[in-house]
Amino acid sequence: MTHPTIEPPYYTVVFTSVRAPGHDDEYRAMATNMVELAHTMPGFLGVDLARDGHLGITVSYWTDEASILHWKRQSDHIQAQKWGRATFYLHYTVTVAKVERSYQFTSF
Amino acid sequence: MTHPTIEPPYYTVVFTSVRAPGHDDEYRAMATNMVELAHTMPGFLGVDLARDGHLGITVSYWTDEASILHWKRQSDHIQAQKWGRATFYLHYTVTVAKVERSYQFTSF
Repeated sequence: MTHPTIEPPYYTVVFTSVRAPGHDDEYRAMATNMVELAHTMPGFLGVDLARDGHLGITVSYWTDEASILHWKRQSDHIQAQKWGRATFYLHYTVTVAKVERSYQFTSF
Repeated sequence: MTHPTIEPPYYTVVFTSVRAPGHDDEYRAMATNMVELAHTMPGFLGVDLARDGHLGITVSYWTDEASILHWKRQSDHIQAQKWGRATFYLHYTVTVAKVERSYQFTSF
């Protein structure tokens, strides 16, 4: 679970998606590749993913907007976006937001 | 799946949690109650939830920061937060961010 250790402001991208049925193996491979690739990108601070049936939420954290645009335009990522629209997703939203504050609780 | 229809800026709260084992029925009842209660709060724009094993992500959307603080201090919600820390969660983070832009894709 991600909690960036830098102080705000930083950025978050919330990617919420509804999957089309089928293509499970290809989807999982693509999703794994994209998470691994994101970790190599400048400005990447972390990512959390949860999928509940067909609804998925991916929350990634970035140092600044330029890093988000750079990631959006990365060539393998562009291919994955096209593949996603053609095959994997019925619907998705992308929301870019500037983090103003963040706090955490740990029970141990 | 939520995509607020108002134009940015508005606010999002990302609640990421790791559950402790057990107490599944009480947890589900509490979570359902809190989602229903959130829908009645001023400034509430929508919510999406996904849980994948022990990791859960809840993303809610609000018109402004005052509405988020009002919700945080709502009395039944305060009780749920205390119950959550005492019983349901090993760990959680709350991230408040100002939405700068949002777009969506629909395949149909």
